Amino acid sequence: MVYIEKFGHGGDLLTARQLFGKDSTQLLDFSANINPLGPPPTLIELIKEQLESIVHYPDPAQRVLKQKLAEKHSVLPEQILIGNGAAECIALAILGLQPETVGVIYPCFSEYEQLARAYGANIQACYGREENDFKPNRSEILQLIAKTDLVFVGHPNNPTGVTYSKAELVEMAEQAVKTNTYLLIDEAFIDFLPIETQITLLEDLQRWKQVILVRSMTKFYAIPGLRLGYMVAHPNLILNLQVKQVTWSVNQMALMAGEAVLNEKEYEEATISLIHEQRSDVKRAIEEKLGWQVFPGQANFLLVRITADITAADLQWRMGHKGILIRSCAMYPGLTAQDFRIAIRTKKENQCLIQALIEVCKEGNPL
Amino acid sequence: MVYIEKFGHGGDLLTARQLFGKDSTQLLDFSANINPLGPPPTLIELIKEQLESIVHYPDPAQRVLKQKLAEKHSVLPEQILIGNGAAECIALAILGLQPETVGVIYPCFSEYEQLARAYGANIQACYGREENDFKPNRSEILQLIAKTDLVFVGHPNNPTGVTYSKAELVEMAEQAVKTNTYLLIDEAFIDFLPIETQITLLEDLQRWKQVILVRSMTKFYAIPGLRLGYMVAHPNLILNLQVKQVTWSVNQMALMAGEAVLNEKEYEEATISLIHEQRSDVKRAIEEKLGWQVFPGQANFLLVRITADITAADLQWRMGHKGILIRSCAMYPGLTAQDFRIAIRTKKENQCLIQALIEVCKEGNPL
Repeated sequence: MVYIEKFGHGGDLLTARQLFGKDSTQLLDFSANINPLGPPPTLIELIKEQLESIVHYPDPAQRVLKQKLAEKHSVLPEQILIGNGAAECIALAILGLQPETVGVIYPCFSEYEQLARAYGANIQACYGREENDFKPNRSEILQLIAKTDLVFVGHPNNPTGVTYSKAELVEMAEQAVKTNTYLLIDEAFIDFLPIETQITLLEDLQRWKQVILVRSMTKFYAIPGLRLGYMVAHPNLILNLQVKQVTWSVNQMALMAGEAVLNEKEYEEATISLIHEQRSDVKRAIEEKLGWQVFPGQANFLLVRITADITAADLQWRMGHKGILIRSCAMYPGLTAQDFRIAIRTKKENQCLIQALIEVCKEGNPL
Repeated sequence: MVYIEKFGHGGDLLTARQLFGKDSTQLLDFSANINPLGPPPTLIELIKEQLESIVHYPDPAQRVLKQKLAEKHSVLPEQILIGNGAAECIALAILGLQPETVGVIYPCFSEYEQLARAYGANIQACYGREENDFKPNRSEILQLIAKTDLVFVGHPNNPTGVTYSKAELVEMAEQAVKTNTYLLIDEAFIDFLPIETQITLLEDLQRWKQVILVRSMTKFYAIPGLRLGYMVAHPNLILNLQVKQVTWSVNQMALMAGEAVLNEKEYEEATISLIHEQRSDVKRAIEEKLGWQVFPGQANFLLVRITADITAADLQWRMGHKGILIRSCAMYPGLTAQDFRIAIRTKKENQCLIQALIEVCKEGNPL
């Protein structure tokens, strides 16, 4: 049973509006993992001022943003490929590397598998298991890397929040080199973590020539409508993937926004601190007030297992009629019909969520 | 010798600014074929009003715009695929149909060949020849269709302005069916033609199951920074291509703009009439005042052959220092170092262009 995820993802407000008979302002969206603070305060004004620039083509080489990202990460501009969302980066990795077999670690973001199949690859998988909070066994990951051509690792992983230590990442990278496999580490949500826990191979990419990091700017900066992501890898690898990219794939508004937000230090700190605090508050409230199981992990979302006699789809349906969207996780291989995901939002919004969950449970019988 | 086309196309203002030491407001761009009227007058305001919607994901199925385009063209929504620019539509056709051999008719838009090669296809070509104003022989096109898996036909063709009669298009479609070849007719510039000369197979696509039409909204509505194009074909064909498209590939601003501009009848008529009138004025001025050869054809641009002792690259260099950008066509197979392309702009802007061309020719020696 699928309601708002008819196109495979959360955040589909048009479908939600049609299902629940509400307009967008009446919907509180916990189904997409977007920064609840909204875009940096000056961004909307800045875009308005520069809006006339849409009469020109975007820079086909994205030179200004590439330079700024290179400085931010202390890498070469040649190590960066800017994409029409992180999703395009994932697609370009598959198109460019042409893997016969792609490895995924269930449960994970569905686009890895969907795009890999669409572009003709076979899928091999291992599972993160519940008893280990969905963190996969070390040996199973290494085996997966050995027997495939390209492996996707979410870090933190969507929807489980699983992360890896530096030693674990290095071990994967070593195995990738040893077995001639590409390793794509999807760090789309890493910016939401406290700085000291943002473990990454970013500074070692000149050494790890088969590792690709993918980052998203749409989630942290709350601009998913504009589409902006990027990958960082060895320059030779970037060169190979770039030729598959359609010219002007990254639009001018996204470039403008990306160039503008990189110095928003205060906003970044406020976001990280809000998510850190609210994450543990929401987790505790669900555990204590609803008695449901909340998996640990990191990132700006929580994976929850309902222990009551209601499915995640039913819960979504009932919550939707209260104007609150949650993400059913029933469609993720490795998860169950009782699992759902929620974004971490502001304190007040999170309280609304908890209140609505409690109400829905009290109401009893299915709609 | 390439100046502003270092990434393969015109309209690269960042490169032009760096080359000629000017800012964007000092550059008059005849190198990209964009509606000189700018976006419809209400569009910029409308985008400003709806800008807050960038905090949500775009509709992954582009339902509203698809419905509107279907109504405009009297086709089914299932016959439409909306793309991140016409360029993405071209890419999806190649990715989805996986042709071993792609046919192109030189001189033509470089992305056909570039994307085909990037995605692993071989190229076969025939040529439109100068003595026939770059219109290819009927029999050569039919042969090209017979011996390839996917043929690209520009209609009107960029940069030559060549168009085809209904009988010619039908003959190509029949040959495509007979020889089991896909035919992609790129109509990116067709909207600029007088309505009665907009010849198309649009109404026959339920019959021609191997024909794909590609249209651009960025050129006519002057929003190339936002990226918006679409293809129209048989529903089964669209279904096959859609699975290769990256989710959320079309951004929210482009969707909003596309939905807003489709009823701009007055703006459409004003554009068509301006281009029609100015096209013949500019053509005549170049022929009479400079004595250069201007090829006939249709669309909002002109292909010009310099008959003086100066190359198109030199001309571009000198014009660039006057703040006017033209498109050298030296890199198009089938054209020469003396060929350049100019967009048709407003009367005043076109007069500036002619004046600058005359000055440059009088100045004599190369810079």
